[in-house]
Amino acid sequence: MINNVNRSLPEDLMNQLGFKPFKSTTIDSTVVARTPHKVAISTGNDKVLNSIKEVVENNVADGMTISFHHHFREGDFVFNLVMQTIIDAGIKDLTLAPSSLTNVMNDMVVKAIEAGTVTNITSSGMRGTLGDAVSHGALANPVIFRSHGGRARAIEQGDIKIDVAFLGVPNSDRLGNANGMDGEAVFGSLGYALMDAQYADKVVLLTDNIVSYPNTPASIKQTQVDYVVKIDKVGDPDKIGSGATRFTKDPKELKIASTVNDVITNSAYFKDGFSFQTGSGGAALAVTRYLRESMKQNDIRASFALGGITKPMIDLLEEGLVDKIMDVQDFDKGAAESMHTSKNQQEIDASWYADPYNKGAMVDQLDVVILSALEIDTKFNVNVMTGSDGVIRGAVGGHQDAATAKLTIISAPLVRGRIATVVPAVSTVVTPGDSIDVLVTEVGIAINPKRQDLIAAMKKVPSVPVFSIEELEQRASKIVGTPKPIEFTERTVALVEYRDGTIIDAIKEVKD
Amino acid sequence: MINNVNRSLPEDLMNQLGFKPFKSTTIDSTVVARTPHKVAISTGNDKVLNSIKEVVENNVADGMTISFHHHFREGDFVFNLVMQTIIDAGIKDLTLAPSSLTNVMNDMVVKAIEAGTVTNITSSGMRGTLGDAVSHGALANPVIFRSHGGRARAIEQGDIKIDVAFLGVPNSDRLGNANGMDGEAVFGSLGYALMDAQYADKVVLLTDNIVSYPNTPASIKQTQVDYVVKIDKVGDPDKIGSGATRFTKDPKELKIASTVNDVITNSAYFKDGFSFQTGSGGAALAVTRYLRESMKQNDIRASFALGGITKPMIDLLEEGLVDKIMDVQDFDKGAAESMHTSKNQQEIDASWYADPYNKGAMVDQLDVVILSALEIDTKFNVNVMTGSDGVIRGAVGGHQDAATAKLTIISAPLVRGRIATVVPAVSTVVTPGDSIDVLVTEVGIAINPKRQDLIAAMKKVPSVPVFSIEELEQRASKIVGTPKPIEFTERTVALVEYRDGTIIDAIKEVKD
Repeated sequence: MINNVNRSLPEDLMNQLGFKPFKSTTIDSTVVARTPHKVAISTGNDKVLNSIKEVVENNVADGMTISFHHHFREGDFVFNLVMQTIIDAGIKDLTLAPSSLTNVMNDMVVKAIEAGTVTNITSSGMRGTLGDAVSHGALANPVIFRSHGGRARAIEQGDIKIDVAFLGVPNSDRLGNANGMDGEAVFGSLGYALMDAQYADKVVLLTDNIVSYPNTPASIKQTQVDYVVKIDKVGDPDKIGSGATRFTKDPKELKIASTVNDVITNSAYFKDGFSFQTGSGGAALAVTRYLRESMKQNDIRASFALGGITKPMIDLLEEGLVDKIMDVQDFDKGAAESMHTSKNQQEIDASWYADPYNKGAMVDQLDVVILSALEIDTKFNVNVMTGSDGVIRGAVGGHQDAATAKLTIISAPLVRGRIATVVPAVSTVVTPGDSIDVLVTEVGIAINPKRQDLIAAMKKVPSVPVFSIEELEQRASKIVGTPKPIEFTERTVALVEYRDGTIIDAIKEVKD
Repeated sequence: MINNVNRSLPEDLMNQLGFKPFKSTTIDSTVVARTPHKVAISTGNDKVLNSIKEVVENNVADGMTISFHHHFREGDFVFNLVMQTIIDAGIKDLTLAPSSLTNVMNDMVVKAIEAGTVTNITSSGMRGTLGDAVSHGALANPVIFRSHGGRARAIEQGDIKIDVAFLGVPNSDRLGNANGMDGEAVFGSLGYALMDAQYADKVVLLTDNIVSYPNTPASIKQTQVDYVVKIDKVGDPDKIGSGATRFTKDPKELKIASTVNDVITNSAYFKDGFSFQTGSGGAALAVTRYLRESMKQNDIRASFALGGITKPMIDLLEEGLVDKIMDVQDFDKGAAESMHTSKNQQEIDASWYADPYNKGAMVDQLDVVILSALEIDTKFNVNVMTGSDGVIRGAVGGHQDAATAKLTIISAPLVRGRIATVVPAVSTVVTPGDSIDVLVTEVGIAINPKRQDLIAAMKKVPSVPVFSIEELEQRASKIVGTPKPIEFTERTVALVEYRDGTIIDAIKEVKD
């Protein structure tokens, strides 16, 4: 079975799991039905418990699907606490369905796999010891990787049916009214977790901070919550930030960021009322800074900025360069705290952000997005999932979702050390080349041939050298040589969904 | 068939419609499933239309259920515009399922009934020409009256399945992000309409004010909206307020309000962190003013105030006498405008407000509520639906819902003109006596015998004369005499649901 990005898929497994191969980036205008969830009626006088064990034993059973969010990122204390309790309770065959898995969770997931507690996983991504274990066949069943919008779709369509959601929050009242903005371990928008709160049959909040009733603003509401468990500490505030919150000083990154800005400002999209998503990381912050200068110089305001939000984006809002921030997650404390005070910073859930099976997601309105790549190939297909050794070490994140923008820019160095970024064929297709418009590297840019309008526009910009993607691939290859092909077994360890639920690629077990 | 408040119900009709008789005010802790709704997928680039006719012709068909909200109250321009278009389109056999019907809609509903456009109605209430027509048998099928919480339950459980919701809003962007706080015809909280926006298969917004995209804060979200129709004017700002926004000068009303305050402040519930709902109307505003003084004198703060919100409640919030306002609707402009700026004024939907089949509704947390009555009988059963002539001229509203409070006070004059309020048996039971604790009249109070604790407490308060409810009934009867019994036919023109969906009473056709 070959799909429309020319990837070979395991037909038997696909049929067994009811998956269809990826066909097109176009989302059909059909009518779908939302999935009903169950509600255990309560007059809700006392939802507070002190024992995770009690909640686990009374609510989690073999074969269930459980979920978590990853808004605490590397500062998460909740996941390990809950998962250890579940392992200790001897529960088996769970499907683990978090919004994503961060490094701090890796060892515990491996432990849960080894104990037979977890036998299925769906996630945005995984890295480190866990990615390594899965790539080497540790999990009985294939992992299903989904984008943030794809996960929202899967939850709303019932492809993921969450039995119990365990959601850490920096505050909650006794009935479960909670937000991500107050307390010690604040992370701002609860965007991904709002899906779980709305659709899981049972919702368990875990917090170190029980506040007066009723708690407002309530991002998660008492009507959605079954239990509030008091724990010592939900997270480490210092590790919640994504790390890269400072402007890069790397000349290569600065060159790329500056070129990205040139591409944006010389495109037809750079006009009053445009919208953009830049993402996190030092290079993204650099783009934001260059863009800020260009917007000021040209007296251009953006109607909205989208996505994971950083403090430099908040600065744009406060300066009046951006009218609204549509906020599905915050990457630093500055962004998290601002949501509290600014009514122009709207918390949005993952469905509103990016569910393709919607009456209108934010990503569909996006003019410009800057995305990263581990690899990009001569068909502009992008890999953000597997490393040059074939091992899983990435995440779909919002990559496929935001690539629906009118101008989708991949910002990446030509090579990283001895590894080429621009390659003849990516090892794993995560985002189809059909939705990518421009690749920006430190030596110049390549434009998708389907965008002749952009090619014409950029040829007029002296500061932006335009190459064919094949030329860039050859330059990369000249620098690092041709790598030895990765050896895989026949076994599929993961399937990568496109945002519409079709399968865009399969990841094979790495041969050691 | 006799239910547990001793009302005779039409057994055949009940069976035919699948209703069960009212049994108890206790809500069982069972597990229920929410109802899925349909979603017509759209990338949402252009939802704006200028023609209601186009939307109606393409989306409304014979036999469907359509809905509206009543947040514009007597200033509503949307209902008549849409309904006239539907009548003109020749559509038949619709179920009309608004959150309530205000007087400005009466004649149009009668017209729709006469045209065969509307053959079923479910509403919180009705009055005037419409109540009169229905009471005289104009509608083929019985009206189903539901409380605000009961409607939320019915929508969430699928008892009301809305095909198309027509929701007027004072602002919207081109994709349907909207709130009730900005524009000409502001009404504040969209509480009731949020149910329709979430659960209807098709959602049509009507607005006179298309604002820049994206509009925030978004109470209704683009993910919920199919069309945005631009009309000339959604409502008359001067008629949106409930009218009674001024402190009463009527000595009888002042006496009742003062006694209500005495009952509250001498009860065990008047302590720091208590909660209350006072409602609208001159007498309710007077209670709020007395309560304010008592709270200041006793240095007592309320944790929250609930329900339909008025400016005097906002004053309490601003003075720090109330920590939070949980806001399902606003009765005046002051309350509507404050929601915009105060993060302690939380917009809540009707489910959160009062759905009994929930993980916790606000009404379940309520300490004190003051409610009105057209009639109250010696079993403390309350009628807020039919007049002394048996004709429908009221609404369930939040009456049944808020009567779940720990201290439920009915505030009513002993007689109104030549009509007794305290009667041997109410003509229509809306709220069961079991959930009523105290009746306050201008001559004194009566306490439900099941509340011996309150009887003991109030006997110590010299300013509050305590009577038995029978004594008050006899006093009323002495003043106005015994009225001639109302004559009804055998035909049922309406069924009144209790908040849990069981039938608490049937309303018969009035014999002329």
